[in-house]
Parts: sequence; C-alpha cells; structure tokens
Amino acid sequence: MKAKKKAPVVTEPDRMTEIYNVAAQLICEKGFDATSMNDIADEVGITKAGIYHYIEDKKSLLFGIMNFGMDRLETHVIRPARAVADPEQRLRTIINNHALLITSGNNARGHNPITILIEELAGLNPAQRRKIEQRKRAYFDFLRETMTKLKTEGKLKEVDTTVAAFSLFGMLLWLSHWYRPNGRLKKEQVVEEITKIALGGLLRPTARLNRK
Amino acid sequence: MKAKKKAPVVTEPDRMTEIYNVAAQLICEKGFDATSMNDIADEVGITKAGIYHYIEDKKSLLFGIMNFGMDRLETHVIRPARAVADPEQRLRTIINNHALLITSGNNARGHNPITILIEELAGLNPAQRRKIEQRKRAYFDFLRETMTKLKTEGKLKEVDTTVAAFSLFGMLLWLSHWYRPNGRLKKEQVVEEITKIALGGLLRPTARLNRK
Repeated sequence: MKAKKKAPVVTEPDRMTEIYNVAAQLICEKGFDATSMNDIADEVGITKAGIYHYIEDKKSLLFGIMNFGMDRLETHVIRPARAVADPEQRLRTIINNHALLITSGNNARGHNPITILIEELAGLNPAQRRKIEQRKRAYFDFLRETMTKLKTEGKLKEVDTTVAAFSLFGMLLWLSHWYRPNGRLKKEQVVEEITKIALGGLLRPTARLNRK
Repeated sequence: MKAKKKAPVVTEPDRMTEIYNVAAQLICEKGFDATSMNDIADEVGITKAGIYHYIEDKKSLLFGIMNFGMDRLETHVIRPARAVADPEQRLRTIINNHALLITSGNNARGHNPITILIEELAGLNPAQRRKIEQRKRAYFDFLRETMTKLKTEGKLKEVDTTVAAFSLFGMLLWLSHWYRPNGRLKKEQVVEEITKIALGGLLRPTARLNRK
C-alpha cells in the first residue's frame, strides 16, 4: 500500500473506485451494452452530466476498470511477491495474496465483477486490448519464472511449467465465479484449501515437508 | 459417441453446428452486441433471410450456443464418466475427457469460443439463465459427489470437496483461454500434465500408487 501512495493510479477509496466497482457490478449483471452511463450515474448517486466528469465514454470505462483491477493485482500480489526471494515462499505469497484479493471482492451472488470483467477484451479497442494483454502477460511470465526457479532447485514435480502456471491461474481466477462470502466457508479457509491443493499438485513432497 | 447417436440433441456435423461455431467465434472476437445476424450469415455463407430459418433472434442464438456446449459436455464427459463406477477412474475420465473436449475446440488464438460463451449469462433472459445454471449445477454436483466418494474410500487428501471441485473446474475451464493447438504442446500432453497436477493435488499418494 505504501508503494501505491507514492505513485497512485487511483487513490482509494475515492469516487473513481466507487464508480469502477458499481459499473463492474452492473456490467456483470446486465451485460456491457445493456448498461448505460445513466444506470451507473444513478447507482453511484450523481447526475448523468456528473459522471462524464470522471469517464469519457463506455469503452474507456471498461479499459479503466481493467487497469484498476490490474493495479490492485500489482499492489497486493505482484509487488509483495517480487519482494520474496525464495521461490517456494514467493509461490505461496502469490497464491495467498491473489486468492485473498479475489475472494475479498466477491459479492453475495458469488461473483467478483472486477476480476470477471478483465476477460472482456472484446469490448476494448486494439490499443487498449494490447495494453491489458501485456499486463496479464507480465504476470504470467512472473509466475512461470517462479515455477522455473522451483524446478531448478528440484522442488517442482515433473510437470510442464507452462501448464502448471496456467492451471494455477485457472484455480485462482475461477474463485471470482463461485466463492460466496456469506456461505459456509470463510475466505481464509478457501485460501488455505486452494494453497493445499495447488502446492500438492506442483511441489515435491520433500520440498513441502521442509517448508518450515 | 454411441449414446449420442441414440438420442441426439444436435446432429453433427450439420448446419446448426456450423452456425453455432461461427457465431461463437464472432461473438468472442467482437462482443455479443457488436456481432450482427448479418455478420454470422455472411461468415456461414447464407443469406440474412436464410439465417432466420435457423435462429429466431440473437438472445436465442446465445442460449442455443450454450445448450450446444452443454450437450457436448453431456455426450463426451458426463455420460461416459457416469458409466464408470470406480470414483478414481471416474475422476480420471472427467479430467481426461473434459480437457480433450476443450482443447480440441480451441482456435489458433488460444480460445475455445463455445466454452468461453457459456459464462455469458448476462446475455440471457431469466428463464434461459436458470436453465443453463441448472445444467452447470448438475455437472458440479456430479463432480463433487465423485470427490465425496473418493473421500469415503480414503483416497482423497484432507481437502474440502467444494473447493476441490471448483479448483478442478478452474483448471479445466481455463484451458479455453490459453491452449494453442499450433503451439509447443500437443493437446494430449496438456491433458496428461493437467491430470498429473490435479490428481497430485487431490489424491493421496497411496491411492495413486495403486492405480494400475
């Protein structure tokens, strides 16, 4: 959070954050084209003229939501994980922080609108799409490098690092489609279970036995 | 495949299948609202009047694509897996067949439009949405029951079956966002790797040692 204060893309919590969250929620429920700027203004409680003070148009709104999501990933997952030198601890930090980030943003219907919308690349223009794809790619490369380091240290099972990295992404990102904060499982439990399943599938038992 | 011939929902390969595949591809690239019935007709090579012989409107087209996807899942994954009594073999059948079904439908850009569109629930009316949600729920329950049976037999690790089932879904469904058929890995290799990672995370080593 300190790093974020130094070079903020969005200052939280502020009006922009509120608009992104409200808009993402509406777009997830109704679809991108069925959601009007009016709907968003109404839900935030500002006038239609007021909302254009913050957002140019719907395409740039979608792009803004995606960058907002990637900024949060950068702040809460990538930056803290980069600070961890040991690849096993780094992998644990990635899983833990990303799973917490997603589950913390899930609504009562079991959806995390910001995370879900990051896949809506079809709504962007080509330049915007390239930017978001680059940011995602950088995260993927970081995760795969971590797997490669684990392999070098003999801690990774005999698995392909590309499939391993994408499989872990799948497990994590899918949280944004199912986890209900008002359900049986607390988010901390879900994070613990996901960590167990992921590390059980990726790390050699010897590596895990020596983890403390 | 035999079961499909006995009670077909869609006869493959036919014009409907072609329309669904072409439409799903276009919608994935351009977005649902930016894709017109005209675009689809053009791409299939029939007239605009001709396409309305097959499809009532765009909402029912989206619903049709989703049911088409769920029918394929039923035929190639759920039905064959239900025929397997042993829960460990059943789990292997689910992973193997679902991973193959998805990767076989991925395009050169690394996307499986049919699988991706199954998440576009916002484009449906409430009755249609309920139907698709029921079909997905039935598959989830089937997968979780399989996990529960493995737990009863002492073959599952100490993991929560709900988190386990959703994590496996995440790994499998994410294939529809990344696997490129023209890339380094053959789909059979990816299926093998995913099976290794998933079973490594879910099954006790003793269960896996006795698997043959």
